[in-house]
Amino acid sequence: MRNNLRINGERLCWRLDRLAQIGRIPGDGVCRLALSDEDKQGRDLVIDWMRELGLSVRIDRIGNVVGMRPGLADGPPVMTGSHIDTVRTGGRYDGALGVLAGLEVIATLNEAEFHTRRPIAVAFFTNEEGSRFQPDMFGSLVYTGALPLDQALATKGIDGASVGKELDRIGYAGAAPAGRPHAHAYVELHVEQGPVLDAESFRIGAVEGVQGISWTEFTLSGQSNHAGTTPMRMRRDAGYVAARIAVFARNLAKELGGNQVATVGSMTLSPNLINVVANHVVMTVDLRNTDDEQLREAERRLFVFADESAVAENVGIARRSLARFAPVAFAPNLVERVEAIAHELGFPVRRLPSGAGHDAQIMAAVCPACMIFVPSVGGISHNVEEYTAPADLVAGAEVLLRLMLELAQ
Amino acid sequence: MRNNLRINGERLCWRLDRLAQIGRIPGDGVCRLALSDEDKQGRDLVIDWMRELGLSVRIDRIGNVVGMRPGLADGPPVMTGSHIDTVRTGGRYDGALGVLAGLEVIATLNEAEFHTRRPIAVAFFTNEEGSRFQPDMFGSLVYTGALPLDQALATKGIDGASVGKELDRIGYAGAAPAGRPHAHAYVELHVEQGPVLDAESFRIGAVEGVQGISWTEFTLSGQSNHAGTTPMRMRRDAGYVAARIAVFARNLAKELGGNQVATVGSMTLSPNLINVVANHVVMTVDLRNTDDEQLREAERRLFVFADESAVAENVGIARRSLARFAPVAFAPNLVERVEAIAHELGFPVRRLPSGAGHDAQIMAAVCPACMIFVPSVGGISHNVEEYTAPADLVAGAEVLLRLMLELAQ
Repeated sequence: MRNNLRINGERLCWRLDRLAQIGRIPGDGVCRLALSDEDKQGRDLVIDWMRELGLSVRIDRIGNVVGMRPGLADGPPVMTGSHIDTVRTGGRYDGALGVLAGLEVIATLNEAEFHTRRPIAVAFFTNEEGSRFQPDMFGSLVYTGALPLDQALATKGIDGASVGKELDRIGYAGAAPAGRPHAHAYVELHVEQGPVLDAESFRIGAVEGVQGISWTEFTLSGQSNHAGTTPMRMRRDAGYVAARIAVFARNLAKELGGNQVATVGSMTLSPNLINVVANHVVMTVDLRNTDDEQLREAERRLFVFADESAVAENVGIARRSLARFAPVAFAPNLVERVEAIAHELGFPVRRLPSGAGHDAQIMAAVCPACMIFVPSVGGISHNVEEYTAPADLVAGAEVLLRLMLELAQ
Repeated sequence: MRNNLRINGERLCWRLDRLAQIGRIPGDGVCRLALSDEDKQGRDLVIDWMRELGLSVRIDRIGNVVGMRPGLADGPPVMTGSHIDTVRTGGRYDGALGVLAGLEVIATLNEAEFHTRRPIAVAFFTNEEGSRFQPDMFGSLVYTGALPLDQALATKGIDGASVGKELDRIGYAGAAPAGRPHAHAYVELHVEQGPVLDAESFRIGAVEGVQGISWTEFTLSGQSNHAGTTPMRMRRDAGYVAARIAVFARNLAKELGGNQVATVGSMTLSPNLINVVANHVVMTVDLRNTDDEQLREAERRLFVFADESAVAENVGIARRSLARFAPVAFAPNLVERVEAIAHELGFPVRRLPSGAGHDAQIMAAVCPACMIFVPSVGGISHNVEEYTAPADLVAGAEVLLRLMLELAQ
């Protein structure tokens, strides 16, 4: 029977549109900063829908909301979800899709009067974006115990407001302890926020993991010299070393292949004049990979090359790490199932990494987790122009439904 | 007899020290901006010395000063000279050495009661540095007719003062027409203002010419993208193209060899953030060579590479020329004589180009001209720490004396 179940695409799109009216900003975007009045209105609306669908709603001390549909047996639910907070100039799909597609799964099961063996849960986590309160993925970090509740409640936002007081103010300092229910598995549907699926005409992305991040700042110290009177062999050109490192970083990503990316986005020369050899450069290298061993290899090769280039030019070099996060790998059997279900449904699918952070990577520490991506047109995200075609939204929700049913049986 | 003539090194150093007291600034440097009160005092002192040495002094409408020593025959003089204005934080040798070594040549001939066939002249030109009034080499440009007198007199300085009024104010709007006397040849002794002679332990530089200059600004327009979610193959990274051009410029100078130099001193990325691919870069490339054909070849190769690199990355590229001056070659027979005389006197000598501008390159348009360089310790110039050892100052003056005697016979 479950192979005949189909979600109601119109209803999904209607809910997305309805939620997007709350905090709507010019250009059809959304501003629903965490724990703001708009966030409260969005929460109220989604909880109304949860209750209409017969879910039992629990709200924890950090404002995470979980709607539960009972199973034929007791035990941890198969959970889906995402977040409904946005960045200041957000789009209407980032986060909201994952939550409302979860409700659509519930609605579809209700209409079919289909009962799963395990319970099913739909969650939305507090402050995933981190735009108002740092860090991002705040609610899921508390949910999984990675961020202590007291510390989270005491956190001050960019506007000086505290998380605890704002939760009280909007009425979302819930009574439930964080971290429950434990999940049997966690599956999250999200827009890609990158260009790959759109550019390559895939409808579904089977997300293998979330990239680890390595940010390194290099400071290069050479000697400022006259561009006319100083022969090439006598130069200690910090700008030249910086340029070599930037070119190397690109080639490194190419050589390592796989999911390795490398970006030199920032490079500041001093004195930055036409006719003076640069004596000082501060530059950054952003390395990312879903495979931590590969990421370490990229770092190793980069550091060796940078040091050798500096020595060859008699330029001083110092480096410091600005950020280092290990990659998160999603459960391989779940990634395989996403791929297989997409195939069964006739949706072009490819594996890919996530370049952005998501609650699913936090949940992956406590249960098998995975993500389903749908295309972002032009890769545009965190922008009012974020757009995903209705057919893609529906395709993602169909894959989510199938996967949750499999997991819940 | 002339082979026995030796200049008086102590007297030369004494004059240099005496002139350096005028406009002296902390750190033993000099500030004697063109047509300032300090410039007037310096002029007065040097003219006093000229008159003490029996020279007839002529001052032209732009304030160029020429002291003449008659020859046994009439005709155009063998001229030497330089300038006594300085940059705001100048050293004590730049310019002053050439003028005062000229006076030392006169003094030496006077003491020996040696009479040359041709007249000998010692000149100092107005506003060589260009620090107060643009362009630099102002006085020699007027002297040779390259800059019209009216335009020169009407020029406003960085402080709003006009050249004509300042000349009147300090009493140096002379009566003589510019451009006379015509010179039989022009020889200028100067500190190198670069590191080559010092680093390689040469005492004399036989200057082959003055580098031509080609300044190009490139504007690169790519696309700003997320450093995590954008695969390498989808990037349009303006920063990467800029880095490739910078590395190419260095390799180009190496490949072309000779006197080719190339400098990327300025490179400004936007938005210049760690985790965003740069969508916009403005960068400059400074190419210099004493050989115009080589300089054109360097430009050609650079432009081809820049265009190809931009196309390969699907990045827009625009370029504009910020400056283009052809090289000046000094008279080959004079360059040879500088080298030969240095050898005769036992001074280690090498040929080299001048990376800085000098009055001699302007005079080269109207008569055979050349320059003699002596070392600048560490290549430091336009700085209070500019320094040349007394033995090197004296060596340069000895070569100047010999060459002028040869030319005046």
